Amino acid sequence: MEFNTKIDYPNFGFEVLHKDAGSFARLGRLQTPHGTIETPNFIFVGTKAAVRNLHPHQLREAGADIMLSNTYHLYIQPGPDLVQKMGGLHKFCGWDGPMLTDSGGFQIFSLGTGTGADEIKGKGRVGGKSLIKIDEELGAIFKSYKDGSICRLNPEISMEIQRKLGADLIVQMDECTPHSADRDYTEKSMHMSHRWGDRSLNAFNAAHDGTQGLYGVVQGGVYRELREESADYTVSRPFFGTAVGGCLGGTKVHFYEILSWLPGRLHPDRPIHLLGIGKIEDIFEGVKQGMDTFDCVTPTREARHGRVLMKGAPKGYINILNSRYKDDQSVLDETLGLYTSGYYSKSYIHHLFKVGEMLAFQIVSQHNVATLAKLMREIRAALKSGQPGALDQLKKEWLPE
Amino acid sequence: MEFNTKIDYPNFGFEVLHKDAGSFARLGRLQTPHGTIETPNFIFVGTKAAVRNLHPHQLREAGADIMLSNTYHLYIQPGPDLVQKMGGLHKFCGWDGPMLTDSGGFQIFSLGTGTGADEIKGKGRVGGKSLIKIDEELGAIFKSYKDGSICRLNPEISMEIQRKLGADLIVQMDECTPHSADRDYTEKSMHMSHRWGDRSLNAFNAAHDGTQGLYGVVQGGVYRELREESADYTVSRPFFGTAVGGCLGGTKVHFYEILSWLPGRLHPDRPIHLLGIGKIEDIFEGVKQGMDTFDCVTPTREARHGRVLMKGAPKGYINILNSRYKDDQSVLDETLGLYTSGYYSKSYIHHLFKVGEMLAFQIVSQHNVATLAKLMREIRAALKSGQPGALDQLKKEWLPE
Repeated sequence: MEFNTKIDYPNFGFEVLHKDAGSFARLGRLQTPHGTIETPNFIFVGTKAAVRNLHPHQLREAGADIMLSNTYHLYIQPGPDLVQKMGGLHKFCGWDGPMLTDSGGFQIFSLGTGTGADEIKGKGRVGGKSLIKIDEELGAIFKSYKDGSICRLNPEISMEIQRKLGADLIVQMDECTPHSADRDYTEKSMHMSHRWGDRSLNAFNAAHDGTQGLYGVVQGGVYRELREESADYTVSRPFFGTAVGGCLGGTKVHFYEILSWLPGRLHPDRPIHLLGIGKIEDIFEGVKQGMDTFDCVTPTREARHGRVLMKGAPKGYINILNSRYKDDQSVLDETLGLYTSGYYSKSYIHHLFKVGEMLAFQIVSQHNVATLAKLMREIRAALKSGQPGALDQLKKEWLPE
Repeated sequence: MEFNTKIDYPNFGFEVLHKDAGSFARLGRLQTPHGTIETPNFIFVGTKAAVRNLHPHQLREAGADIMLSNTYHLYIQPGPDLVQKMGGLHKFCGWDGPMLTDSGGFQIFSLGTGTGADEIKGKGRVGGKSLIKIDEELGAIFKSYKDGSICRLNPEISMEIQRKLGADLIVQMDECTPHSADRDYTEKSMHMSHRWGDRSLNAFNAAHDGTQGLYGVVQGGVYRELREESADYTVSRPFFGTAVGGCLGGTKVHFYEILSWLPGRLHPDRPIHLLGIGKIEDIFEGVKQGMDTFDCVTPTREARHGRVLMKGAPKGYINILNSRYKDDQSVLDETLGLYTSGYYSKSYIHHLFKVGEMLAFQIVSQHNVATLAKLMREIRAALKSGQPGALDQLKKEWLPE
């Protein structure tokens, strides 16, 4: 394959400030038209232009630096034209910091087949088999969950939608291959994703006005040679950033192994985003393998199940539904500077869950966002310190078991 | 009936600062151990120690002065002993201002028979026929919706529960007679409520430590002589305040007519609370008939249906679900000093409802609380102004049609 177009990203930048001695971790600074953030960092997921039960100001209060929204969902409702008319996603939802949108591909393939989401996300709800057909030229044809109408997504359409949404960071169209796909399918799919990457680049560049930076996606499933080939593809193309996507293995070993293939193989001067990963131990592993940003619905999804992220707790969280908290007058974490975390007792929050008050989700969601933001701050501080083993020491503090 | 006990309320006070020339409206100051509030005022309902999707700090931000919680629901979950162990309701839920609890009677009777709630509240959901028996001595016997266990509420138990909950203002046990009850039933029920009032006073006084003020309740249904007799009963007893309860008629005419019987008949030096009423036009009518405080789930219930309270809108609200708002970039009300009301566009809030995000309820709930708090401030300002007709003028501004 050849690709000779050069693309400039004048309003964007990525600078590696410090490299860890004992791992591939790096401290960086990611510049976008809506502000510069330090990395490693976490991108909080506002699926439908809203993080669950938290408005953007509450995200800010919690220390979030950047948020993400899903192209697929916004395509269906309220539609990219409406968002554009409202001045773009930032203005529409009131978040003035950096934003990222994904390509929409993941939802179509995972919701469509009912397997990808199960495998990648664990046991998330699957929205029925809405995917009708995948055609390389036409793209993915699927039914809207809103009104059953036939929709289509391909590289050109994804770029157009993402341009209208107007996030700072956007992602090429790709196919998300399920974990169960064999090597042959995975390879063919990956090559299609690369061709879709080129089409994404062309469509992006044709309308490029300097306000957006495009990420290429590394696919290749659980096959090392494919992952390496895909990494090489992204390096050879004028993307602004690199995203690591697709099936990240059915087990932790697989996932960590896949990550271990990437250092040295991805473009060294571009920000690297690990798609859809957000558990605390996985963030530590990702950081050590050179990942700069992460995203996942973890903070708010865990909140809905009463799991309160907490530094030093077994597995990184406490279950506030446990009856031991029914008369616990201590607060969640007074160091976060939030009413939700520093003022209301565990006893009260336990009660709110027991009686089914939505307020419980709001309080724990903001707390969980703040706790992940704190984790990322502490990871950056550990890297800044330059102390050998600082990252491993920090991991032990967060996850003592 | 005779009742010779005198009860002092040393930490409580009610002062009428100004009387309206053209109506029975009055400007007052209600003192409690947790602060002094101006009246007329609105008591925001946190049924289960939480206003729906708003934590107490968010209530404060919205300008709320006082909140209410339901004895019945807290009796069932988490139970008065737990709340007492946690230091009482204020400490448990983190609201440091004045609080009121009701007697628990309304929920038992209305939920129990499946008629009271329908009639009084309009069309609220009815929780099944859980009421087993009403016995004057034993009280109301009912099944817990939590676990089906048999519970009991009578004047002594209600006083004990409310003492453990520890709200500043508490209410005597009464029977809430349905609208459909005939004169004979209503009269017998009212007399029982009066005897329960005396038992409430005795039980209250036996444990009285100066931290709570007890309200008597005026019953009597839609019958003028009964309402007057009930008013006389409350005047003759050493209650701190007067609550107007029971069925307030099936129609507006009835309700307003009932209120018109009360001025001059209730104790002039006590605060008067109108139970369960919260529509804007009804608040204006209640104020004119001398009511000092109101409570209702209106602000948050309306929010869940997308009804955004707004000064000057037809019927006092706009329906944000209406498609006219889908591209409306204006905010709800920038005068309220809230992010929720002054920063997010109607377009965004419309979108949040359309996609079913809980955040929609949070934003509109806080806005609605703030709008009702603003209404009450403006009512007080109108009364303070001393201008003839100021209240009617204000009503026209709020409800132009």
